[in-house]
Amino acid sequence: MKKLLVIGIGAGNPDYITLQAVKALNRVDVFFIMDKGQSKDKLIDLRRELCERHITDPHYRFVEASSPERERGDVDYRTSVDALNLAKQRTFERLINEELADDQCGGFLVWGDPALYDSTIRILQAILVSGTCAFEFEVIPGITSVQALAAQHKVALNQIGRSVEITTGRRLAAGQVSDADSLVVMLDAQDAYQHVEDRQTEIYWGAYLGTPDEILISGKLEEVAQQIERVRKAARQANGWIMDTYLLRKP
Amino acid sequence: MKKLLVIGIGAGNPDYITLQAVKALNRVDVFFIMDKGQSKDKLIDLRRELCERHITDPHYRFVEASSPERERGDVDYRTSVDALNLAKQRTFERLINEELADDQCGGFLVWGDPALYDSTIRILQAILVSGTCAFEFEVIPGITSVQALAAQHKVALNQIGRSVEITTGRRLAAGQVSDADSLVVMLDAQDAYQHVEDRQTEIYWGAYLGTPDEILISGKLEEVAQQIERVRKAARQANGWIMDTYLLRKP
Ligand SMILES: C[S@@+](CC[C@H](N)C(=O)[O-])C[C@H]1O[C@@H](n2cnc3c(N)ncnc32)[C@H](O)[C@@H]1O
Ligand SMILES: C[S@@+](CC[C@H](N)C(=O)[O-])C[C@H]1O[C@@H](n2cnc3c(N)ncnc32)[C@H](O)[C@@H]1O
Repeated sequence: MKKLLVIGIGAGNPDYITLQAVKALNRVDVFFIMDKGQSKDKLIDLRRELCERHITDPHYRFVEASSPERERGDVDYRTSVDALNLAKQRTFERLINEELADDQCGGFLVWGDPALYDSTIRILQAILVSGTCAFEFEVIPGITSVQALAAQHKVALNQIGRSVEITTGRRLAAGQVSDADSLVVMLDAQDAYQHVEDRQTEIYWGAYLGTPDEILISGKLEEVAQQIERVRKAARQANGWIMDTYLLRKP
Repeated sequence: MKKLLVIGIGAGNPDYITLQAVKALNRVDVFFIMDKGQSKDKLIDLRRELCERHITDPHYRFVEASSPERERGDVDYRTSVDALNLAKQRTFERLINEELADDQCGGFLVWGDPALYDSTIRILQAILVSGTCAFEFEVIPGITSVQALAAQHKVALNQIGRSVEITTGRRLAAGQVSDADSLVVMLDAQDAYQHVEDRQTEIYWGAYLGTPDEILISGKLEEVAQQIERVRKAARQANGWIMDTYLLRKP
């Protein structure tokens, strides 16, 4: 039986990797690397470095496949994501069928944790349901950007006994309804914190968390929101891409 | 300056520990162990084992302090937690003042991630604000039980582009209001999933995640809720305590 490992590598600091992930890296014969445009070079290099550093018997190889880009613009978000995931599913099926022998182990190195805003698990489950390839798979958790954010700001995610909600910039901008007084926002392409009505809300913002480029800003929205927007724009221009996350806490 | 490290050790599997945490363990002179009743022996042993296994120059020592128990019964939850945290704060102040020399490093080993339903960060921030001791501190993230749950069930926490909320059994039982269609429940002392009205809701339940005693059950509430309640009760009786978490997904 073919075996697949979906390995969370943590979101930023190479030392976020767990011992479980290091052991998993050492079981892999073929690493599947999905190349993702802009931010790719740095992130793919990081994956290669992790393998070089932690794999003791280097019998492994890399297979790169270009990961289709989501259609932007006029299409509905959900439709374009569904189309993207179907295209990815076909790519995964091809990789598993053509690049992996029957007794071999394939590995997907997932940024952060595979359970949070990542499609790898969902796609593998869909392939198993469709029956187009046969394999077993395991998931290895990794430190998420949410945890990197909390650790670097030295702040708890939840208030005592309260909830925390993790959401996207798109949903925040569309008007989030929740009883959670702590809201973690990821995938924000539009400065959605500017849409939050109560400007007394505390924001803990972090970009490139856990990396040498890390930037941290915190304070009340009325005091720091403009600064974050400026810094964010400048950082995106300087690096060509940005990864940022923030925690909003109701006053 | 005294230094404190709040080190997330992961929630279950000893291999959940990160390389960053292993490096942090090696910097600590004094580990502060809070003893917590029932479940304590097993969890304290695990901490000692992690230190033995990963610390290369064993110059460290352990200081145990009994962690006061939260008052149950007639008191308001928030009041009893506040009282508890104040008592913990006094204990921490004593430990930092009496057990740590000026250039030494103290360590708190926190189950899972220190940012999620844990009071260590909050207490250290309160001590700094109060000015009763002077120190610097760092937080090292760890794999949470939420991530262990998702990994072991091979399921994503969020639906595509949607939110996920993390909450307590107490809040779920009191009637949660949220637009998140994925709800992670922790600290459930009362089988709060039995209060969920829509019995078509999917539940992914896990106990003692990442440990040899792990139990996983999943399915629609109408099909598995009774089984979970039975298994949960039996496990709690057999082990004297239970740690469990679950993901609820709206149909
Ligand atoms: C597609 S999601 C993947 C999340 C990832 N699976 C995780 O566990 O963090 C990408 C989003 O994660 C956040 N992100 C990932 N890495 C980050 C980092 N090092 N610093 C700040 N934000 C990060 C950003 O919000 C980004 O838009
Ligand atoms: C006080 S909270 C601490 C959470 C911890 N900081 C974390 O990151 O997972 C304790 C709760 O975590 C959950 N929990 C912790 N470890 C667990 C495990 N191994 N399996 C299942 N649930 C666990 C349970 O819901 C328990 O009531």
